[in-house]
Amino acid sequence: MNYCSACGAEVVLKIPEADNRHRHVCIRCNTIHYSNPKIVTGCIPTWQDRILLCKRAIEPRYGLWTLPAGYMEIGESTVQAAMRETFEEANARVEIQDLYMVIHLPYVNQVYLMYRSQLLEEEYSSGEESLEVQLYREEEIPWDLLAFPAIRETLKFYYQDRKAGCFRIRTGEISKNKEGYTFHLHT
Amino acid sequence: MNYCSACGAEVVLKIPEADNRHRHVCIRCNTIHYSNPKIVTGCIPTWQDRILLCKRAIEPRYGLWTLPAGYMEIGESTVQAAMRETFEEANARVEIQDLYMVIHLPYVNQVYLMYRSQLLEEEYSSGEESLEVQLYREEEIPWDLLAFPAIRETLKFYYQDRKAGCFRIRTGEISKNKEGYTFHLHT
Repeated sequence: MNYCSACGAEVVLKIPEADNRHRHVCIRCNTIHYSNPKIVTGCIPTWQDRILLCKRAIEPRYGLWTLPAGYMEIGESTVQAAMRETFEEANARVEIQDLYMVIHLPYVNQVYLMYRSQLLEEEYSSGEESLEVQLYREEEIPWDLLAFPAIRETLKFYYQDRKAGCFRIRTGEISKNKEGYTFHLHT
Repeated sequence: MNYCSACGAEVVLKIPEADNRHRHVCIRCNTIHYSNPKIVTGCIPTWQDRILLCKRAIEPRYGLWTLPAGYMEIGESTVQAAMRETFEEANARVEIQDLYMVIHLPYVNQVYLMYRSQLLEEEYSSGEESLEVQLYREEEIPWDLLAFPAIRETLKFYYQDRKAGCFRIRTGEISKNKEGYTFHLHT
Protein backbone atom coordinates (compact mmCIF):
# COMPACT_ATOMS: atom_id res chain seq x y z
CA MET A 1 0.00 0.00 0.00
CA ASN A 2 1.45 3.33 -1.13
CA TYR A 3 -1.51 5.69 -1.37
CA CYS A 4 -4.64 6.42 0.62
CA SER A 5 -7.67 4.81 -1.01
CA ALA A 6 -9.89 7.54 0.44
CA CYS A 7 -8.09 10.72 -0.66
CA GLY A 8 -5.16 9.61 -2.86
CA ALA A 9 -2.38 11.13 -0.72
CA GLU A 10 0.63 9.12 0.43
CA VAL A 11 0.46 6.77 3.40
CA VAL A 12 3.11 6.10 6.04
CA LEU A 13 3.54 3.10 8.30
CA LYS A 14 3.08 4.09 11.93
CA ILE A 15 1.43 3.03 15.16
CA PRO A 16 -1.78 5.04 15.57
CA GLU A 17 -2.72 6.45 18.97
CA ALA A 18 -4.32 3.85 21.28
CA ASP A 19 -3.05 1.06 19.00
CA ASN A 20 -0.04 -1.24 19.30
CA ARG A 21 0.58 -2.23 15.68
CA HIS A 22 1.95 -0.51 12.62
CA ARG A 23 -0.76 0.55 10.18
CA HIS A 24 -0.80 2.42 6.92
CA VAL A 25 -1.98 5.93 7.85
CA CYS A 26 -2.74 8.73 5.37
CA ILE A 27 -0.52 11.79 5.78
CA ARG A 28 -3.36 14.08 4.63
CA CYS A 29 -6.73 12.76 5.84
CA ASN A 30 -5.33 10.53 8.63
CA THR A 31 -7.42 7.54 7.57
CA ILE A 32 -6.04 4.36 9.15
CA HIS A 33 -5.96 1.46 6.68
CA TYR A 34 -6.27 -1.89 8.41
CA SER A 35 -5.14 -5.11 6.81
CA ASN A 36 -6.73 -8.37 7.96
CA PRO A 37 -6.68 -12.06 7.07
CA LYS A 38 -9.10 -13.26 4.40
CA ILE A 39 -11.57 -16.11 4.60
CA VAL A 40 -11.39 -18.96 2.11
CA THR A 41 -14.49 -21.15 2.14
CA GLY A 42 -14.96 -24.48 0.47
CA CYS A 43 -16.25 -27.98 0.92
CA ILE A 44 -15.64 -31.69 0.51
CA PRO A 45 -18.33 -32.67 -1.99
CA THR A 46 -19.16 -36.35 -1.60
CA TRP A 47 -21.20 -38.77 -3.68
CA GLN A 48 -21.58 -42.13 -1.95
CA ASP A 49 -17.98 -43.15 -1.09
CA ARG A 50 -16.34 -40.74 -3.52
CA ILE A 51 -15.07 -37.15 -3.28
CA LEU A 52 -15.20 -34.56 -6.03
CA LEU A 53 -11.85 -32.97 -6.90
CA CYS A 54 -11.09 -30.23 -9.42
CA LYS A 55 -7.94 -29.92 -11.53
CA ARG A 56 -6.94 -26.26 -11.49
CA ALA A 57 -7.02 -24.34 -14.77
CA ILE A 58 -5.54 -21.23 -13.13
CA GLU A 59 -2.40 -20.19 -11.30
CA PRO A 60 -1.19 -20.81 -8.69
CA ARG A 61 -0.86 -24.58 -8.92
CA TYR A 62 -2.17 -24.92 -12.45
CA GLY A 63 -2.84 -28.58 -13.26
CA LEU A 64 -2.97 -29.76 -9.64
CA TRP A 65 -6.03 -31.11 -7.85
CA THR A 66 -8.05 -29.30 -5.20
CA LEU A 67 -11.36 -29.20 -3.38
CA PRO A 68 -13.76 -26.42 -4.45
CA ALA A 69 -12.79 -23.36 -2.39
CA GLY A 70 -12.18 -19.64 -2.77
CA TYR A 71 -12.41 -16.22 -1.17
CA MET A 72 -15.64 -15.44 0.64
CA GLU A 73 -17.28 -12.38 -0.93
CA ILE A 74 -19.05 -9.44 0.64
CA GLY A 75 -22.77 -10.12 1.05
CA GLU A 76 -22.74 -13.92 1.17
CA SER A 77 -22.56 -16.29 4.11
CA THR A 78 -19.76 -18.82 4.59
CA VAL A 79 -22.17 -21.59 3.57
CA GLN A 80 -23.34 -19.69 0.48
CA ALA A 81 -19.71 -19.04 -0.46
CA ALA A 82 -18.86 -22.75 -0.22
CA MET A 83 -21.86 -23.62 -2.43
CA ARG A 84 -20.99 -20.89 -4.94
CA GLU A 85 -17.38 -22.02 -5.24
CA THR A 86 -18.50 -25.59 -5.85
CA PHE A 87 -20.86 -24.44 -8.57
CA GLU A 88 -18.28 -22.12 -10.19
CA GLU A 89 -15.47 -24.67 -10.22
CA ALA A 90 -17.36 -27.91 -10.80
CA ASN A 91 -20.89 -26.99 -11.99
CA ALA A 92 -22.06 -29.09 -9.07
CA ARG A 93 -24.81 -28.43 -6.57
CA VAL A 94 -24.22 -29.47 -2.97
CA GLU A 95 -25.99 -29.56 0.34
CA ILE A 96 -23.62 -28.16 2.93
CA GLN A 97 -23.29 -30.21 6.13
CA ASP A 98 -21.12 -29.56 9.18
CA LEU A 99 -18.20 -27.19 9.34
CA TYR A 100 -15.24 -29.53 9.34
CA MET A 101 -11.90 -27.67 9.20
CA VAL A 102 -10.84 -24.19 10.31
CA ILE A 103 -7.24 -23.79 9.18
CA HIS A 104 -5.13 -20.69 9.52
CA LEU A 105 -2.38 -20.12 6.94
CA PRO A 106 -0.32 -17.24 8.32
CA TYR A 107 2.08 -17.28 5.32
CA VAL A 108 -0.73 -16.15 3.02
CA ASN A 109 -2.98 -14.50 5.64
CA GLN A 110 -5.88 -16.81 4.96
CA VAL A 111 -8.29 -18.70 7.18
CA TYR A 112 -9.88 -21.73 5.50
CA LEU A 113 -13.40 -22.77 6.49
CA MET A 114 -14.06 -26.17 4.95
CA TYR A 115 -17.46 -27.87 5.21
CA ARG A 116 -18.51 -31.43 4.58
CA SER A 117 -21.12 -31.61 1.83
CA GLN A 118 -23.11 -33.95 -0.36
CA LEU A 119 -23.71 -33.63 -4.08
CA LEU A 120 -27.43 -33.27 -4.78
CA GLU A 121 -27.07 -35.38 -7.92
CA GLU A 122 -24.21 -37.10 -9.75
CA GLU A 123 -23.75 -34.15 -12.06
CA TYR A 124 -20.62 -32.09 -12.44
CA SER A 125 -18.35 -30.70 -15.11
CA SER A 126 -15.40 -28.35 -15.42
CA GLY A 127 -16.10 -24.75 -14.53
CA GLU A 128 -13.99 -21.92 -15.96
CA GLU A 129 -11.30 -22.39 -13.30
CA SER A 130 -11.03 -26.16 -13.74
CA LEU A 131 -9.42 -28.32 -16.43
CA GLU A 132 -11.16 -31.44 -15.22
CA VAL A 133 -13.50 -32.51 -12.42
CA GLN A 134 -13.66 -36.05 -11.13
CA LEU A 135 -15.07 -38.21 -8.33
CA TYR A 136 -12.33 -40.15 -6.53
CA ARG A 137 -12.40 -43.17 -4.23
CA GLU A 138 -10.01 -43.02 -1.28
CA GLU A 139 -7.44 -45.28 -2.97
CA GLU A 140 -7.54 -43.13 -6.11
CA ILE A 141 -6.84 -39.72 -4.49
CA PRO A 142 -3.83 -38.16 -6.28
CA TRP A 143 -2.00 -37.31 -3.03
CA ASP A 144 1.16 -36.22 -4.85
CA LEU A 145 -0.75 -33.92 -7.15
CA LEU A 146 -2.81 -31.96 -4.60
CA ALA A 147 -2.62 -28.20 -5.03
CA PHE A 148 -2.50 -26.95 -1.42
CA PRO A 149 -1.47 -28.26 2.01
CA ALA A 150 -4.83 -27.21 3.48
CA ILE A 151 -6.56 -29.53 1.00
CA ARG A 152 -4.23 -32.39 1.89
CA GLU A 153 -4.90 -31.96 5.63
CA THR A 154 -8.65 -31.73 5.07
CA LEU A 155 -8.69 -34.96 3.07
CA LYS A 156 -6.40 -36.75 5.56
CA PHE A 157 -8.68 -35.92 8.50
CA TYR A 158 -11.75 -36.76 6.46
CA TYR A 159 -10.60 -40.30 5.71
CA GLN A 160 -9.30 -40.77 9.26
CA ASP A 161 -12.68 -39.75 10.71
CA ARG A 162 -14.65 -41.74 8.17
CA LYS A 163 -12.71 -44.85 9.19
CA ALA A 164 -13.39 -44.07 12.87
CA GLY A 165 -17.09 -43.59 12.05
CA CYS A 166 -17.26 -40.12 13.55
CA PHE A 167 -16.56 -36.72 12.03
CA ARG A 168 -15.51 -33.86 14.30
CA ILE A 169 -14.35 -30.36 13.56
CA ARG A 170 -10.62 -29.57 13.61
CA THR A 171 -8.99 -26.17 13.98
CA GLY A 172 -5.33 -25.65 13.33
CA GLU A 173 -2.57 -23.83 11.57
CA ILE A 174 -0.27 -24.65 8.69
CA SER A 175 3.18 -23.12 8.85
CA LYS A 176 5.63 -22.90 5.98
CA ASN A 177 9.37 -23.29 6.35
CA LYS A 178 12.38 -24.49 4.38
CA GLU A 179 11.37 -28.15 4.77
CA GLY A 180 7.84 -27.53 3.53
CA TYR A 181 4.52 -27.27 5.32
CA THR A 182 3.64 -28.40 8.85
CA PHE A 183 0.17 -28.73 10.31
CA HIS A 184 -0.37 -27.85 13.98
CA LEU A 185 -3.65 -28.97 15.51
CA HIS A 186 -5.21 -26.49 17.95
CA THR A 187 -8.48 -28.15 18.88
CA MET B 1 -12.63 3.51 -2.13
CA ASN B 2 -11.77 6.41 -4.46
CA TYR B 3 -8.09 5.96 -5.28
CA CYS B 4 -5.75 3.10 -6.10
CA SER B 5 -3.66 2.18 -3.05
CA ALA B 6 -0.88 0.97 -5.34
CA CYS B 7 -0.40 3.97 -7.68
CA GLY B 8 -2.71 6.74 -6.39
CA ALA B 9 -4.78 7.09 -9.59
CA GLU B 10 -8.57 7.00 -9.57
CA VAL B 11 -10.49 3.73 -9.43
CA VAL B 12 -13.72 2.80 -11.17
CA LEU B 13 -16.27 0.16 -10.28
CA LYS B 14 -16.42 -2.49 -13.01
CA ILE B 15 -16.55 -6.23 -13.57
CA PRO B 16 -13.04 -7.42 -14.43
CA GLU B 17 -12.52 -9.97 -17.21
CA ALA B 18 -13.23 -13.56 -16.05
CA ASP B 19 -15.03 -12.24 -12.99
CA ASN B 20 -18.73 -11.79 -12.25
CA ARG B 21 -18.72 -9.07 -9.60
CA HIS B 22 -18.09 -5.36 -9.54
CA ARG B 23 -14.64 -4.48 -8.17
CA HIS B 24 -12.71 -1.28 -7.72
CA VAL B 25 -10.22 -1.26 -10.62
CA CYS B 26 -7.45 1.31 -11.13
CA ILE B 27 -7.80 3.32 -14.36
CA ARG B 28 -3.99 3.63 -14.65
CA CYS B 29 -2.29 0.45 -13.36
CA ASN B 30 -5.37 -1.84 -13.64
CA THR B 31 -4.91 -3.24 -10.15
CA ILE B 32 -8.11 -4.94 -8.99
CA HIS B 33 -8.95 -4.12 -5.37
CA TYR B 34 -10.94 -6.88 -3.69
CA SER B 35 -13.04 -6.30 -0.64
CA ASN B 36 -13.75 -9.26 1.67
CA PRO B 37 -15.42 -9.99 5.01
CA LYS B 38 -13.32 -9.65 8.15
CA ILE B 39 -12.83 -12.17 10.91
CA VAL B 40 -13.72 -11.29 14.49
CA THR B 41 -12.33 -13.76 17.02
CA GLY B 42 -13.18 -14.02 20.68
CA CYS B 43 -14.04 -16.38 23.47
CA ILE B 44 -16.33 -17.22 26.37
CA PRO B 45 -13.92 -17.05 29.32
CA THR B 46 -15.24 -19.21 32.16
CA TRP B 47 -14.23 -19.60 35.80
CA GLN B 48 -16.12 -22.44 37.46
CA ASP B 49 -19.81 -21.67 36.72
CA ARG B 50 -19.23 -18.02 35.83
CA ILE B 51 -18.52 -16.15 32.58
CA LEU B 52 -16.31 -13.09 32.22
CA LEU B 53 -17.98 -10.10 30.57
CA CYS B 54 -16.48 -6.70 29.71
CA LYS B 55 -18.29 -3.37 29.81
CA ARG B 56 -17.25 -1.45 26.71
CA ALA B 57 -15.28 1.78 27.15
CA ILE B 58 -15.36 2.49 23.39
CA GLU B 59 -17.90 3.10 20.68
CA PRO B 60 -19.93 1.47 19.28
CA ARG B 61 -22.07 0.33 22.21
CA TYR B 62 -20.17 2.24 24.88
CA GLY B 63 -21.27 1.10 28.35
CA LEU B 64 -22.79 -2.20 27.18
CA TRP B 65 -21.49 -5.67 28.05
CA THR B 66 -19.67 -8.02 25.71
CA LEU B 67 -17.44 -11.07 25.51
CA PRO B 68 -13.78 -10.39 24.66
CA ALA B 69 -13.57 -10.28 20.85
CA GLY B 70 -12.06 -8.23 18.05
CA TYR B 71 -10.58 -8.24 14.58
CA MET B 72 -8.06 -10.96 13.83
CA GLU B 73 -4.74 -9.40 12.86
CA ILE B 74 -2.23 -10.36 10.19
CA GLY B 75 0.32 -12.85 11.53
CA GLU B 76 -1.67 -14.39 14.37
CA SER B 77 -3.84 -17.48 14.44
CA THR B 78 -7.54 -17.42 15.30
CA VAL B 79 -6.72 -18.94 18.70
CA GLN B 80 -3.94 -16.41 19.37
CA ALA B 81 -6.29 -13.61 18.38
CA ALA B 82 -8.94 -14.80 20.85
CA MET B 83 -6.32 -14.97 23.63
CA ARG B 84 -4.94 -11.54 22.75
CA GLU B 85 -8.36 -9.90 22.76
CA THR B 86 -9.10 -11.41 26.18
CA PHE B 87 -5.83 -10.09 27.54
CA GLU B 88 -6.28 -6.63 25.98
CA GLU B 89 -9.86 -6.16 27.15
CA ALA B 90 -9.81 -7.95 30.49
CA ASN B 91 -6.16 -8.49 31.47
CA ALA B 92 -7.10 -12.14 31.73
CA ARG B 93 -5.21 -15.20 30.55
CA VAL B 94 -7.23 -18.07 29.10
CA GLU B 95 -6.78 -21.54 27.75
CA ILE B 96 -8.72 -21.76 24.51
CA GLN B 97 -10.92 -24.84 24.15
CA ASP B 98 -13.21 -25.81 21.28
CA LEU B 99 -14.43 -23.51 18.54
CA TYR B 100 -18.03 -22.90 19.51
CA MET B 101 -19.75 -20.38 17.22
CA VAL B 102 -19.15 -19.33 13.61
CA ILE B 103 -21.55 -16.47 12.94
CA HIS B 104 -21.78 -14.45 9.77
CA LEU B 105 -22.99 -10.84 10.07
CA PRO B 106 -23.58 -9.73 6.48
CA TYR B 107 -24.72 -6.24 7.55
CA VAL B 108 -21.21 -5.44 8.82
CA ASN B 109 -19.28 -7.95 6.66
CA GLN B 110 -17.90 -9.82 9.63
CA VAL B 111 -17.54 -13.50 10.49
CA TYR B 112 -17.32 -14.20 14.22
CA LEU B 113 -15.27 -17.16 15.43
CA MET B 114 -16.03 -17.65 19.14
CA TYR B 115 -14.21 -20.24 21.23
CA ARG B 116 -15.00 -21.70 24.63
CA SER B 117 -12.19 -20.99 27.09
CA GLN B 118 -11.16 -21.24 30.73
CA LEU B 119 -9.46 -18.58 32.79
CA LEU B 120 -6.06 -19.81 33.97
CA GLU B 121 -6.55 -18.02 37.31
CA GLU B 122 -9.25 -15.85 38.86
CA GLU B 123 -7.46 -12.69 37.80
CA TYR B 124 -8.84 -9.99 35.58
CA SER B 125 -9.23 -6.23 35.41
CA SER B 126 -10.33 -3.57 32.95
CA GLY B 127 -8.18 -3.22 29.89
CA GLU B 128 -8.07 0.06 27.94
CA GLU B 129 -11.22 -0.78 26.00
CA SER B 130 -13.25 -1.79 29.07
CA LEU B 131 -14.90 0.28 31.83
CA GLU B 132 -15.43 -2.77 34.00
CA VAL B 133 -14.85 -6.53 33.87
CA GLN B 134 -16.89 -8.99 35.88
CA LEU B 135 -17.65 -12.70 36.32
CA TYR B 136 -21.35 -13.43 35.98
CA ARG B 137 -23.47 -16.42 37.00
CA GLU B 138 -26.19 -17.38 34.50
CA GLU B 139 -28.96 -15.67 36.49
CA GLU B 140 -26.90 -12.47 36.69
CA ILE B 141 -26.18 -12.02 32.94
CA PRO B 142 -27.33 -8.51 31.92
CA TRP B 143 -29.28 -9.74 28.89
CA ASP B 144 -30.80 -6.30 28.22
CA LEU B 145 -27.42 -4.60 28.30
CA LEU B 146 -25.46 -6.84 25.92
CA ALA B 147 -23.57 -4.96 23.21
CA PHE B 148 -24.03 -7.17 20.16
CA PRO B 149 -26.51 -9.79 18.89
CA ALA B 150 -23.65 -12.22 18.17
CA ILE B 151 -22.73 -12.10 21.87
CA ARG B 152 -26.33 -12.71 22.90
CA GLU B 153 -26.61 -15.76 20.59
CA THR B 154 -23.31 -17.15 21.79
CA LEU B 155 -24.36 -16.90 25.44
CA LYS B 156 -27.83 -18.33 24.74
CA PHE B 157 -26.38 -21.42 23.04
CA TYR B 158 -23.73 -21.74 25.73
CA TYR B 159 -26.27 -21.98 28.54
CA GLN B 160 -28.55 -24.21 26.49
CA ASP B 161 -25.69 -26.64 25.81
CA ARG B 162 -24.40 -26.48 29.38
CA LYS B 163 -27.85 -27.49 30.61
CA ALA B 164 -27.91 -30.36 28.11
CA GLY B 165 -24.45 -31.44 29.24
CA CYS B 166 -22.95 -31.32 25.74
CA PHE B 167 -21.36 -28.46 23.82
CA ARG B 168 -21.43 -28.54 20.04
CA ILE B 169 -20.36 -26.02 17.45
CA ARG B 170 -23.01 -23.85 15.77
CA THR B 171 -22.71 -21.97 12.50
CA GLY B 172 -25.23 -19.40 11.44
CA GLU B 173 -26.04 -15.93 10.28
CA ILE B 174 -27.52 -12.86 11.93
CA SER B 175 -29.58 -10.63 9.69
CA LYS B 176 -30.64 -7.10 10.48
CA ASN B 177 -33.99 -5.64 9.53
CA LYS B 178 -36.50 -3.06 10.74
CA GLU B 179 -37.66 -5.30 13.60
CA GLY B 180 -34.12 -5.90 14.82
CA TYR B 181 -31.79 -8.87 14.53
CA THR B 182 -32.66 -12.45 13.60
CA PHE B 183 -30.41 -15.48 14.00
CA HIS B 184 -30.56 -18.23 11.35
CA LEU B 185 -28.90 -21.49 12.26
CA HIS B 186 -27.03 -23.20 9.37
CA THR B 187 -25.50 -26.24 11.06
